Amino acid sequence: MRSIEWIQEKGLVKAIDQSRLPREFVFIEFKQADDIRTAIKTMVIRGAPIIGVSAFYAMALKARELETEPLPWMKEGLLQFATHLNFARPTAVNLAWAVEAATKLINDFIGTTEQLSGALLSFANQKAEEDVAANLSISRFGAELINDGDHIIHHCNTGALASVDYGTALGCIRLAHEQGKRIHVYVDETRPRLQGSRLTAWELEQYKIPYEIITDSSSGYLMRLGRVEKVFFGADRVASNGDVVNKIGTYMLALAAYDNGIPAYAAMPVSTLDFNCPNGESVTIEERSGDEILGLQQNGLPVAPENAKALNYAFDVTPHRLIDALITEKGVLYPPFFRSISVLNTNGRTQ
Amino acid sequence: MRSIEWIQEKGLVKAIDQSRLPREFVFIEFKQADDIRTAIKTMVIRGAPIIGVSAFYAMALKARELETEPLPWMKEGLLQFATHLNFARPTAVNLAWAVEAATKLINDFIGTTEQLSGALLSFANQKAEEDVAANLSISRFGAELINDGDHIIHHCNTGALASVDYGTALGCIRLAHEQGKRIHVYVDETRPRLQGSRLTAWELEQYKIPYEIITDSSSGYLMRLGRVEKVFFGADRVASNGDVVNKIGTYMLALAAYDNGIPAYAAMPVSTLDFNCPNGESVTIEERSGDEILGLQQNGLPVAPENAKALNYAFDVTPHRLIDALITEKGVLYPPFFRSISVLNTNGRTQ
Repeated sequence: MRSIEWIQEKGLVKAIDQSRLPREFVFIEFKQADDIRTAIKTMVIRGAPIIGVSAFYAMALKARELETEPLPWMKEGLLQFATHLNFARPTAVNLAWAVEAATKLINDFIGTTEQLSGALLSFANQKAEEDVAANLSISRFGAELINDGDHIIHHCNTGALASVDYGTALGCIRLAHEQGKRIHVYVDETRPRLQGSRLTAWELEQYKIPYEIITDSSSGYLMRLGRVEKVFFGADRVASNGDVVNKIGTYMLALAAYDNGIPAYAAMPVSTLDFNCPNGESVTIEERSGDEILGLQQNGLPVAPENAKALNYAFDVTPHRLIDALITEKGVLYPPFFRSISVLNTNGRTQ
Repeated sequence: MRSIEWIQEKGLVKAIDQSRLPREFVFIEFKQADDIRTAIKTMVIRGAPIIGVSAFYAMALKARELETEPLPWMKEGLLQFATHLNFARPTAVNLAWAVEAATKLINDFIGTTEQLSGALLSFANQKAEEDVAANLSISRFGAELINDGDHIIHHCNTGALASVDYGTALGCIRLAHEQGKRIHVYVDETRPRLQGSRLTAWELEQYKIPYEIITDSSSGYLMRLGRVEKVFFGADRVASNGDVVNKIGTYMLALAAYDNGIPAYAAMPVSTLDFNCPNGESVTIEERSGDEILGLQQNGLPVAPENAKALNYAFDVTPHRLIDALITEKGVLYPPFFRSISVLNTNGRTQ
């Protein structure tokens, strides 16, 4: 089962509505490119890998909307939309990279409008396949790092929902479980959007992997109690020095792991490595509405005082000194990352 | 205004119902000792200092309930209740210490049942007064450590609500504000019970101190951005080596402060120092119901999957190496804490 896919007979894109999990498992059908853009912005579709693939599908849908225009107008409309789409979320490199790749295809294209439309759809389908293949490869490399009996803290959601299928960090855990290793996952809630308690917990229920939900702030104490062997998370962008930009809370989690001598692994496709980015500090960190924090309810009423303001950074930067390894579909990268990442760059990217 | 007090004309104890803030500011009237015990257990009354004082008042109410019994039976009933009360919450030393002090008074007492009843009430009133005086002194010492323009991360609630009046860590911040220093407080939510976004935010609204609510996991990133000058929190028990047992999340917060060269201060009355406790590891850490985590709702429905389990440690241990100073009513203690705490012990406790 795919979290996002093209439905040929209906001429539309179908994706899981992540905002309604775990209560309801439903798909949304997207006929309009702009609805995918909105879904990315409002996190109905979320997770770095699936955001990238969704962007390709949004471009394909936009092409179908503009197919009856003359080619130069179609191209112009597509490029305008691409710029707009790029602003939906600033931090994950996958979106920027998808927009860039689609833009290149459009600029270089020669042929009919129907052919351009078909080329963008094929491109999107190809990227979706590549995502699944990359995730399976990441999971194979990552599962090697997991031992029978491990207790693993997992941050945010990095599973099948966050990708076309299988996932990155959660994919590693899932494969280790499928290999017969006994795993226990501590699922941190991941405030404010609760991707842990909503989505990761839901996925682990499906895979029948034992887990307990914990508050984000209790990871460190569990480590101090000696109850944690590994820490796994994904990445939204990795700088060329190995700094990991990921969901807010990753830095404090990786720091606590470091303080307790517990390995912290980040898993991501090579497309998440930003070879042009020197370090985490140069990445734009998305600041989302404070309402995501203030919207928390108790007995149907907001928790915080009526006039309260909140500050809501969606991501943070984990310095490479706190990361034990980067798990990619090309293999596991170890420190010094500036070297292992640059070797990977020289040897050529997947895309 | 007092968060808890004896109402002589009605013969009852009045305390703020912390479970209904910030929506409603209401007092509960306690006529039965066991209702105070329940209020402590369910966190309607919470905060190490006020828990201690409440325990004294619970003993005083119990004495009034047993006043018509013969003295030996009254003493027996009081001691039974004291044991029961002591189990309401295991981590904060203030409760254990109040029970111990009341037990000593009862065991040593010679006189009529009415006199014992009166003695326990006077004792409770005296402890309430001492709490206010200690907090004002803590706040004076702590405010000295705060500079004009400081941005301070504050964890949990350590204000007037957590004590009879004024508070410990939040008292320091409040006094610095009253001294005319411009302060900005980052109030972390403090999952799962949200004492930050519910109670500390409410108090800061009353004092007109500027603040923003943040998720617990974003403290570290704000520090990395250079937006934080100080970190303040309270304590539920301090070991003789300076390890601080406090609300879950304190360890990760103090660790992030340490990693960023930002001072982390713990404020508490001397009665919170446990001279007989060698280190944080020997303190019983309360594990509360997972429902406190799983009860989180979104649009009136639970956030987590139906069958989800949660693991909910209410406190953690912050090793003394991460603490810059302990602020007490007797003065500010600096490392090495095993020495500064032992000097304080030798010089005699307040009580």
